Amino acid sequence: MNKQLKLVKRPVGMPEADTWNLESNPIPELKEGEVLIQNHYISLDPAMRGWMNNVRSYIPPVQIGDVMRAGSIGEVIKANNHPKYKVGDVLTGWGGVQQYNVTDGSGYYPVDTSLAPMPTYIGTLGMPGMTAYFGITEVGKIKEGDVVLVSGAAGAVGSVVGQVAKIKGCRVVGIAGGAEKCKYLVDELGYDGAIDYKNESVFKGIKKHCPEGVDVYFDNVGGDILDAALANIRMHARIVICGAISQYNNTDKINGPSNYLSLLVNRATMQGMVVMDYAKDYREAAMNMGTWMAQGKLKSKEDIYEGIENFFPTFERLFNGDKKGKLILKVLETAKV
Amino acid sequence: MNKQLKLVKRPVGMPEADTWNLESNPIPELKEGEVLIQNHYISLDPAMRGWMNNVRSYIPPVQIGDVMRAGSIGEVIKANNHPKYKVGDVLTGWGGVQQYNVTDGSGYYPVDTSLAPMPTYIGTLGMPGMTAYFGITEVGKIKEGDVVLVSGAAGAVGSVVGQVAKIKGCRVVGIAGGAEKCKYLVDELGYDGAIDYKNESVFKGIKKHCPEGVDVYFDNVGGDILDAALANIRMHARIVICGAISQYNNTDKINGPSNYLSLLVNRATMQGMVVMDYAKDYREAAMNMGTWMAQGKLKSKEDIYEGIENFFPTFERLFNGDKKGKLILKVLETAKV
Repeated sequence: MNKQLKLVKRPVGMPEADTWNLESNPIPELKEGEVLIQNHYISLDPAMRGWMNNVRSYIPPVQIGDVMRAGSIGEVIKANNHPKYKVGDVLTGWGGVQQYNVTDGSGYYPVDTSLAPMPTYIGTLGMPGMTAYFGITEVGKIKEGDVVLVSGAAGAVGSVVGQVAKIKGCRVVGIAGGAEKCKYLVDELGYDGAIDYKNESVFKGIKKHCPEGVDVYFDNVGGDILDAALANIRMHARIVICGAISQYNNTDKINGPSNYLSLLVNRATMQGMVVMDYAKDYREAAMNMGTWMAQGKLKSKEDIYEGIENFFPTFERLFNGDKKGKLILKVLETAKV
Repeated sequence: MNKQLKLVKRPVGMPEADTWNLESNPIPELKEGEVLIQNHYISLDPAMRGWMNNVRSYIPPVQIGDVMRAGSIGEVIKANNHPKYKVGDVLTGWGGVQQYNVTDGSGYYPVDTSLAPMPTYIGTLGMPGMTAYFGITEVGKIKEGDVVLVSGAAGAVGSVVGQVAKIKGCRVVGIAGGAEKCKYLVDELGYDGAIDYKNESVFKGIKKHCPEGVDVYFDNVGGDILDAALANIRMHARIVICGAISQYNNTDKINGPSNYLSLLVNRATMQGMVVMDYAKDYREAAMNMGTWMAQGKLKSKEDIYEGIENFFPTFERLFNGDKKGKLILKVLETAKV
C-alpha cells in the first residue's frame, strides 16, 4: 500500500491540517517502460504554497484530489523494461508527498549517493541549491567586490546564495529571524554580517552593514524587507525576485514594494526567476557546488523530520521559521522488527 | 529686470499657488566667460514635482529660495568673452522658471532653429523625447513584432515612446485619459489601440488589445495602471519605470505594485531609467528623430501657454490631465507697442 497525501481543498491564507488528506492506496501495476520508485525523502519548500492556488503561474496548480506536489528522492525498486533506469538506481524528481511513485522517469534524474547523501540532493544539490546558484550568478550577475544582501538567509535557498556569493568574492550580509540563525550565518557560513529581523530594524541594519549601499539584493521574502532593501540600493543594483514568503498566506492583496521608484533613482533592475529555466545547466552547477562542498567552502544543513503523517506540522515550520536548515521529510518507513 | 519664480516652501501633496513666489530682480553683470540668455520657453514636466521633495534622488532637490528648476530654451543676448557661445545663439538647458539666466554655459547646448522651432527642442527633440527614445530602445529593448504598451500615452514622453515603437515595427497600445486623447493616439499617431483609463477598465482594455500579453510596458504613471500591466505581461517582458505621475502628490506612502510577483512568474524585468545617463548619445537620437519628423513619421504636439505669471495654472495641467501635448510656458515678454 502507498500512503499518499492529497489536496482536498484550496486554502485561504495559511493552510490547515485538513487542507490535505492522507490516504492508503494500492500501488498500480507497472506498464511497459515504467519504474516503481520508493520515495525516501521529500522536500518542503515555500513554493508549495503557491502551487495550491488556482491561478496562472510558472507551473500549473495542484488540482483538488491530486497528490500534493513535492520534490523527492528515492530508489527504483521495480522496473518494467525501462530504457534508462534499473532496480537500485537512486532518482530525484517530482515524486510528490507519497511513499511510492510509478513513473516513466520523465522529470527524474539519477544521482550518485556515494558522493553526497540523499537529503543533500534535494537541498543544496537540488532545486533550492540550483535556485540559489543561478539566481545569484545569472540574474544577480554578481562580480567580485559586490555588496550582496540576501533575505531568508539561513534558509535552503538563502544559505546557498550567500555562500556562493562569498566564494565569488562578494561582501555578504544576510537577513534572518533570531539570534541563533544570525550567529550561524556569521560563524558557520562566513557571512560578513547578519541582520535579525525579529529583533532589530532591517532598514537600520542594512544601513549599518552596507553603508555604501547594496549592489545585489536576493529576495526570498517580499513585504517590508524588500522595501527596506530598495531604500538602500546602489546605482545599477540588481534585485533578484525569487520568492515572497511573507506574502504567500496573505488573504488580502499582496503588499507591493512601496519603494520601487528607487529603481528609477538608482537605474536599478528588479528581475524575476524560476529555476526550471536553467535545467540544461543543472549538471554543471551540481559539479561546481559538489566540488565546493568537498573543499569545505559550501556547507549544507538539513533539518529532517520523519513520517508522512507529520507532513503538516513540518510544512508549518516553513512559515513560522522554526527550522534549522533545509526542511525535509523522510517518508520511507523502515520495517519494524 | 528678471522675473524669477522661487520655491518658498516644500509642498505636501499637490503644490498650491503659494508654493512659489514670483520676484523681480536685477540681472547681474556678466563675469568673464559668461553669457546672458533670454529664456523664450520653459518646459513643464511631471518630474518637477519630485525635484521639490527634500529626498535623495537622481538629482539634488531644489532648495527653498532657489529659482524653480526647469528645462528651457532661449537666446544669448549678451556675452563676455565666452569660449563657445555668442550673441544670437539659441541654447537649450536648465534655465529655470525665469526670464533671464546668467551662465557659463555648462549644461547647455546649441540648437538650430532653422530645422525645428524652439518649443520642439524642449519637447520631442528635448528631454521628454530623449527619455522616450532611450527608454524604449535601450531599456525596453524593443524589437520588431513586440507588443508595446505605454501609459501617459498622449503625453510628451508617451507619445514619442509609441511613435518610436511603431517606427521600429512594434504593435503599440496606449493608455490615456479621455476619448479625445485616445482618438488622437489612433488617428493621428497611428497607435494600434488605445485604452481610456477614465472610462474603461484598464485591465480589460489590455486583455482586449493585447490578448497574447505585453512584451514591453513603458510606465509613466505607476499605481493601479502599473498593476494592470503587470497582470498582463508576457514571458521575458521588460517594464520600463520612467515615472509615476499618479503617485507624485501622495501624502501617504507610494502604492507599490501589488502584482510584482508577475515578474517571477514571467521571468520579467522591471528597470528604472534617468535620461541624463544617455547624454553622450543625445545628438545621434536628435538626428534620428529629426529625420523621422521631416519624413512625417514622428509627430510633435505642443500645448503652449503664455506668461511667467501663469506658471501655476499651467503646472496644474500636468496633474489634472488638461493638456494637449507637451506643456510649455512662454516666458518671453514681447515688447508692448
